[in-house]
Amino acid sequence: MNSTKQKRIADYGIAIGSLPKGPLNKITDVPGVKVGHCTVATEEHNTGVTVILPCAENIFANKLPAAAFVWNGFGKTAGLAQVEELGTLECPIALTNTLNVGLVHDALVEYMVGRCEKDGVPMHSINPVVGECNDSGLSNISRRAIGRKEVFAAIDSACADFAEGAVGAGRGTICHGLKGGIGSASRQIELDGKTYTLGVLVQSNYGKLADFTLCGRLIGPKILEEQQLADVNVDKGSIMMIVATDLPASDRQLRRIIKRCSVGLARLGSYVGHGSGEIMIGFTTAARIRYDEPCGTVNLPILNENKIDLAFRAAAEATEEAVLNSMICAEPVTYQGKTRHSLREYEKYLG
Amino acid sequence: MNSTKQKRIADYGIAIGSLPKGPLNKITDVPGVKVGHCTVATEEHNTGVTVILPCAENIFANKLPAAAFVWNGFGKTAGLAQVEELGTLECPIALTNTLNVGLVHDALVEYMVGRCEKDGVPMHSINPVVGECNDSGLSNISRRAIGRKEVFAAIDSACADFAEGAVGAGRGTICHGLKGGIGSASRQIELDGKTYTLGVLVQSNYGKLADFTLCGRLIGPKILEEQQLADVNVDKGSIMMIVATDLPASDRQLRRIIKRCSVGLARLGSYVGHGSGEIMIGFTTAARIRYDEPCGTVNLPILNENKIDLAFRAAAEATEEAVLNSMICAEPVTYQGKTRHSLREYEKYLG
Amino acid sequence: MNSTKQKRIADYGIAIGSLPKGPLNKITDVPGVKVGHCTVATEEHNTGVTVILPCAENIFANKLPAAAFVWNGFGKTAGLAQVEELGTLECPIALTNTLNVGLVHDALVEYMVGRCEKDGVPMHSINPVVGECNDSGLSNISRRAIGRKEVFAAIDSACADFAEGAVGAGRGTICHGLKGGIGSASRQIELDGKTYTLGVLVQSNYGKLADFTLCGRLIGPKILEEQQLADVNVDKGSIMMIVATDLPASDRQLRRIIKRCSVGLARLGSYVGHGSGEIMIGFTTAARIRYDEPCGTVNLPILNENKIDLAFRAAAEATEEAVLNSMICAEPVTYQGKTRHSLREYEKYLG
Amino acid sequence: MNSTKQKRIADYGIAIGSLPKGPLNKITDVPGVKVGHCTVATEEHNTGVTVILPCAENIFANKLPAAAFVWNGFGKTAGLAQVEELGTLECPIALTNTLNVGLVHDALVEYMVGRCEKDGVPMHSINPVVGECNDSGLSNISRRAIGRKEVFAAIDSACADFAEGAVGAGRGTICHGLKGGIGSASRQIELDGKTYTLGVLVQSNYGKLADFTLCGRLIGPKILEEQQLADVNVDKGSIMMIVATDLPASDRQLRRIIKRCSVGLARLGSYVGHGSGEIMIGFTTAARIRYDEPCGTVNLPILNENKIDLAFRAAAEATEEAVLNSMICAEPVTYQGKTRHSLREYEKYLG
Repeated sequence: MNSTKQKRIADYGIAIGSLPKGPLNKITDVPGVKVGHCTVATEEHNTGVTVILPCAENIFANKLPAAAFVWNGFGKTAGLAQVEELGTLECPIALTNTLNVGLVHDALVEYMVGRCEKDGVPMHSINPVVGECNDSGLSNISRRAIGRKEVFAAIDSACADFAEGAVGAGRGTICHGLKGGIGSASRQIELDGKTYTLGVLVQSNYGKLADFTLCGRLIGPKILEEQQLADVNVDKGSIMMIVATDLPASDRQLRRIIKRCSVGLARLGSYVGHGSGEIMIGFTTAARIRYDEPCGTVNLPILNENKIDLAFRAAAEATEEAVLNSMICAEPVTYQGKTRHSLREYEKYLG
Repeated sequence: MNSTKQKRIADYGIAIGSLPKGPLNKITDVPGVKVGHCTVATEEHNTGVTVILPCAENIFANKLPAAAFVWNGFGKTAGLAQVEELGTLECPIALTNTLNVGLVHDALVEYMVGRCEKDGVPMHSINPVVGECNDSGLSNISRRAIGRKEVFAAIDSACADFAEGAVGAGRGTICHGLKGGIGSASRQIELDGKTYTLGVLVQSNYGKLADFTLCGRLIGPKILEEQQLADVNVDKGSIMMIVATDLPASDRQLRRIIKRCSVGLARLGSYVGHGSGEIMIGFTTAARIRYDEPCGTVNLPILNENKIDLAFRAAAEATEEAVLNSMICAEPVTYQGKTRHSLREYEKYLG
Repeated sequence: MNSTKQKRIADYGIAIGSLPKGPLNKITDVPGVKVGHCTVATEEHNTGVTVILPCAENIFANKLPAAAFVWNGFGKTAGLAQVEELGTLECPIALTNTLNVGLVHDALVEYMVGRCEKDGVPMHSINPVVGECNDSGLSNISRRAIGRKEVFAAIDSACADFAEGAVGAGRGTICHGLKGGIGSASRQIELDGKTYTLGVLVQSNYGKLADFTLCGRLIGPKILEEQQLADVNVDKGSIMMIVATDLPASDRQLRRIIKRCSVGLARLGSYVGHGSGEIMIGFTTAARIRYDEPCGTVNLPILNENKIDLAFRAAAEATEEAVLNSMICAEPVTYQGKTRHSLREYEKYLG
Repeated sequence: MNSTKQKRIADYGIAIGSLPKGPLNKITDVPGVKVGHCTVATEEHNTGVTVILPCAENIFANKLPAAAFVWNGFGKTAGLAQVEELGTLECPIALTNTLNVGLVHDALVEYMVGRCEKDGVPMHSINPVVGECNDSGLSNISRRAIGRKEVFAAIDSACADFAEGAVGAGRGTICHGLKGGIGSASRQIELDGKTYTLGVLVQSNYGKLADFTLCGRLIGPKILEEQQLADVNVDKGSIMMIVATDLPASDRQLRRIIKRCSVGLARLGSYVGHGSGEIMIGFTTAARIRYDEPCGTVNLPILNENKIDLAFRAAAEATEEAVLNSMICAEPVTYQGKTRHSLREYEKYLG
C-alpha cells in the first residue's frame, strides 16, 4: 500500500491547532526516525506489530535521551523502569497486542544481539521497550500471533512514509467505538532561527463513541444514533503515544513535554477511563549518549526551559491529530461476522 | 455578599457534561465540607485567602484519606510530601498568593494548636496544606498582605453556600486573560443505590485568552479582537484544584480520580503551560483515620475499582464547570489604572 | 535435592536482627505462598527460572494487594506499571536472566490462559511480573535458554520448602564477588495477639567483594586477599527482592514496607551501584480483590499505620538474611574454566 | 564558638569509608557553599535555624541544577514540588523545627525580595526550600520561636567553617536517643584528573538508641544499659540531608546520588521508622540556569553516567560521618529538668 495515497484528517479540511506541520506530517519528519509495520489479517487474527526506529546508528551504542510518563498504568508496557532511571533509550520501540509483549520483547533482544554482533559492539544487556493495546475485540489474542518473523519484517520494512490506520499494531484496535489504529502527525517549532520538529505516533484503542468530539463538536452521539448500536459501556483499551523530536531536551524536559499528549486526548473526548492504559514515551535525536564514552563529564544540549511552551503545544496538537489520522485512515474490519466501522464512513459529520 | 444570588455559568444555559449536579453545585455538597474566604481589596492589594474545612470534627484527630497529584510542579504548594506518604489529610487546606504561603502556613499551625488544645488532643506536629497562585498582576505580592487575622477570618466565615469569583484567594487571579477567581461545581454518582457526591473547588489563574474554549467553541480570539488588546504571551499562573468526595476510596484511588481534573482544563483550552503550576489535592469524608486508633488493623471502605469511571468523569466535568464559575462570577478588577475584564462582560459569546 | 538439608547462614551461628523467624525461615512461611525452580546447568549455560506462586487460588480472579518500588531502575523487570497503578498482583511472579524476560513473560501468559480456561474465568488481559538479573558472567545469556518448558517445570515443582543457592534464577548470579543465588528468610510480627509473617526472597547479583560486610564486620577484603584476585571494579548486577506477607496492608503501606529491604542491603555493604538494578515487589495474602466483585464498595483490611514499624524492621532483617542465605547455600560454579567461589568456602571468616 | 576547635568523630579515630575528605570535611568544601546558624537556647526553647547558602551570586537569577528525594515523606518540608518539576534551586535552603516552617518560609521570601531588589533582578515568585525536624522533646515547639530576625541572623553569620552539634536547627534534636544536631562531612572524587567534592549536611533527629551502630558495632544497647533508661519506643523524628557538589550532574543524576544518603543511615542502625521523615535535597554548583537566558538551547555539563559510582559512595560515606559528627559535636542539653546526653559522654564505646 502506498501510504502517501491515504486520505488523512487534514484532507477533510479538519485543522488541529495552530503550529505548522512537517512535510509528511508524521513522526518521521524528525530526521532519522523510521517506522515499520507487520500486519496479520486472517480469519482468526487482526493484529500486528509496529516498530519505531529512532535513529540509523546502533542505538545501544548511541543511546538517545528519553523519558516515559505513565498517565494510566493499567497496561503491560515493558522497559519503562530503565528509561525512567537512566533517561535513555537503547533499543527500538515496538508496539503490539497485550498478550504478545513477551514474544515481541524477545524478538527485539534477538535483533539487538545480532545488530551489536554485526557492529562489533559488546552487549550483554538490552532494554527493549514494548508497548501494547488490547485487540481482543477483533483478534484471538490468546494465541499470540506475533513472533520473531513478524518483528523482523516490521523492522525490515521501516521507512519514513509509513502507512496509517488498520495496520501493524493498529490492525485490531478500536477507538471511540470505531476502528482505531496507527496514526501520526508532526509539528514544527522555531527556536533561535532554527526549525525543529516534534512528531507523535499513536496506537489508538480507547474511548467511548458517545464521548467522541471533533474540533469541539460532540459528534459521537450522532454516529451512535445512525449506527443504531448501543455504545460499549466502558472506556477500555489503552493508547500508546510515542513522541520523537530533534529539539535538544533533557530527560526531565522530555517527560514534561510528553505529558502534554494527554491534552490532545481530552479534547477528543477521553476521560482516561480506568481500563485505558495511557502511556507516553519520548526521545530526542539531538544528542547521543555513547556506551563507551571516555570522558568523565559531557555537555548535553538542552532546552532553555522558558522556551518550552511551544513544545508542549506541539505535543498536544500532534497527538490530537495523530489519533484522528489513526481513525480516518483505518478501513472497517470484520471479525466473527461483526464489522467495526471506520470514521471515514461518517464523512458527513466531519465538515 | 449573598453568594446564592451570583449568576453562574449554568444560569447562562451552559451545560458541562452529563452527570447530575448536587443541590448547590459546589464542593460543599459533600456533607461536612465548608469553605470560607477573607478578601483583601485595597489600592495596593487584590488578594486573599480561601480555606477548605473538610469536616466538622478535629481533623488532626480524625484524619481523612487523601491524595495529591502534581500535574505541573512549577508552584509552591506546601504539605504535599506527607499527604503522598501517609495518604491522609490532617489539617484544613488553605489557598492564597504565592509569596504568602509561609504566613498562611503559620496561621494554620496556630489554628490547629488552638483547636487541639481546646479538644484535648495532644499535638506536636501538624501538616498544613497551603496552595497558591501568583496574583502579582493585580496585587503588590511582595508585601504579603495575608496573615493570621485573615486566615482566622476565613475559617470563621466558612459555610456551605460560599461566594465565587474575585473573592478570597481568587481576588487577584487571572484566567485565560480574563478575571479568574474561586469557582466550584459538583457531580453526583449512583453506586449500589446510594448517591455520592464529588465536588471541586478551583483557584483559577492560568491560560491564554487566545486558547479559551467554551463547550468546544474557541471564543477567546473573538474576545481578544473585541478587546483590541494583545494577549499575554505565556500561559503562566497556576491553578489549584481541590476535590472532595464522600465516595469511599483509598488514597491511590483518590489520586487516580483527581488526575482526571486535568481533562476539564484541556477542554477549556489549556496546554498546561510551563509557568502554570497545576496541582490537585483530594480527600474523602467516607472514613476517618483516628490518631489514637487502638487496633492493629482496621477496615477501610474503598471503591470497587471496576466502578471508578463515573468518579473520573465527575472530576473532569466538575473541574471544567468550576473554572467557568470562577470566571463568570468574577467582577472586573482594576489595579494601577488597568482593568482586568470579566467573562460576564462578553455574554454574547456564551450562547 | 532436599532443601531442608542445606546449611544456612543461621546454622553458622550468624543471627540477623531481633525478630522471631517463621518455621522454615523462608518466604513460604506466609501461608499459601509456594516457590518453584527450574535450573539449567550445562556447559553453555548456568541460568534458570524461579517462580513465586502467591496463592493457591486463580490469582487473576482473586487479585492480591501489591506494590513495587524501584530503588534503582537499571533493570528490565516487566509488569511494574500496572502493579503501581492498580495496587494489585494478578499473576505469579517469575525471576530469570536479563535477556530471557520476554520468553518467560510469554510463558506466564500461556500458563494463565490455560489456568483461566480450566477455571472458567474469562481473561483477555494479564499482567505478568518478570524480574531479572544479568548472569552473563556464568552463562551464554544471548542464547536465552529459558522457555515455556522451563517455566512450566518451575511452576509444577513449586513447594514450601524450596532449595536456595545456585538454583533456578540464581544459578548464574554473582553477589559481592562470590557465588550468589536465590535466598530467603522470614520474620514474625505480633499484632493484637495474632502472629503475622513477612517473608523475603532474593535473587542476589550485586555488590563488590571489597565492600562485603557480615554483621558489621568488613570481611570482603580478607577474602579478596586470600583469593589473590582482583575484585571486580564495579557494583554491577542487580538484586530482585520479593516480599510476601499475611499482614493486612494497603498498596501504599506495602510500598513503604518493601522500601525498607534496602536497609538490609546497605548493611551488607551495598552502595546500590549504578549498574545494580534494585527492585522490590511485595504483596499481601490478607485480602482478595475479586475480578467480578459485584458491590460498588468493599472493605479492605489494612494496617494501623502507627503499628507499621515492626513490618519495616522485618523487611530489613529478612532481606539481609535472605542475601546471606543465597550466598551460603550456593555451591561454587565453574564456567569456561573459571570458578566463582562460594561464601561457604570461607567459613573461617563467618565466626 | 570557634567551630574548628570542635572535636569531631574522626578525632576519635573513627574512619568512615575509603574516599578522601575535603580540607574542612564539611559541606562547605564545595566552593561557594556557606552555612549559618541562629540558635535559640532559653528555658523555654532549644531550637533554631540553619541556612545553607549554595552560592555567592543571586541564586534566583542564577539557579542551580538540583533534585530532591523523599525517602520517607512523614515531614513538612516545603518547596519540593518545584525542585522536582524544574530541577533547579532558586533560593537558599533553611532548616528549622516542624512548626516553624511557615515563618522561616516567609523570612526567606523577605530575604529574596530584598536581595533581588538590591541586585536589580525582577522577581514576583520564589520557591523557598524549608526542611524541618521535630524538636518538641527539648523545646516548646507550639510557640514557634524562629522568625525573621533569626533567619536573617543565620544568613548573616554564614561561613565555611560553621559549628556542628547542638546549634541552629540542631539545637533541640535527638538522634538514636542521644543528643543530635547539625553535622557535616565531605568526600573528594577524581575524574579526568580533576578533583571534585561532594559534601553533606544533616539535621539529625531519628532512630532508637537500641539500634545505634558504630562502624558495624552495635553500641546502642551498651549505652542504654549504662544509662539505665528505657529506650524510646519508636523511631521518630526525621532527618534532613542536604547534599552539595561541584560535580557536573543533571537533576536526574543528582536525584540518584542523593538517594544513596540512605545507605549511610542504614549502617548507623536506622530502619527508617514510620515517624522519621527522611528527605534528601541536593544541588550542584557546576552550572547556572540563568533566569534571563536569551538562547533557545543551552549546554549543560553532566556526568558520564558510567562514572557515577564514586559519587554514590561519597554520598553514603559523607552522610554516615555527618550524622556521627552531629552527635559527637553536640553538648548535652537539659530541658524541664531532664538531660539528653551526648555521644561524647560515652567515649569508651567509640574505640
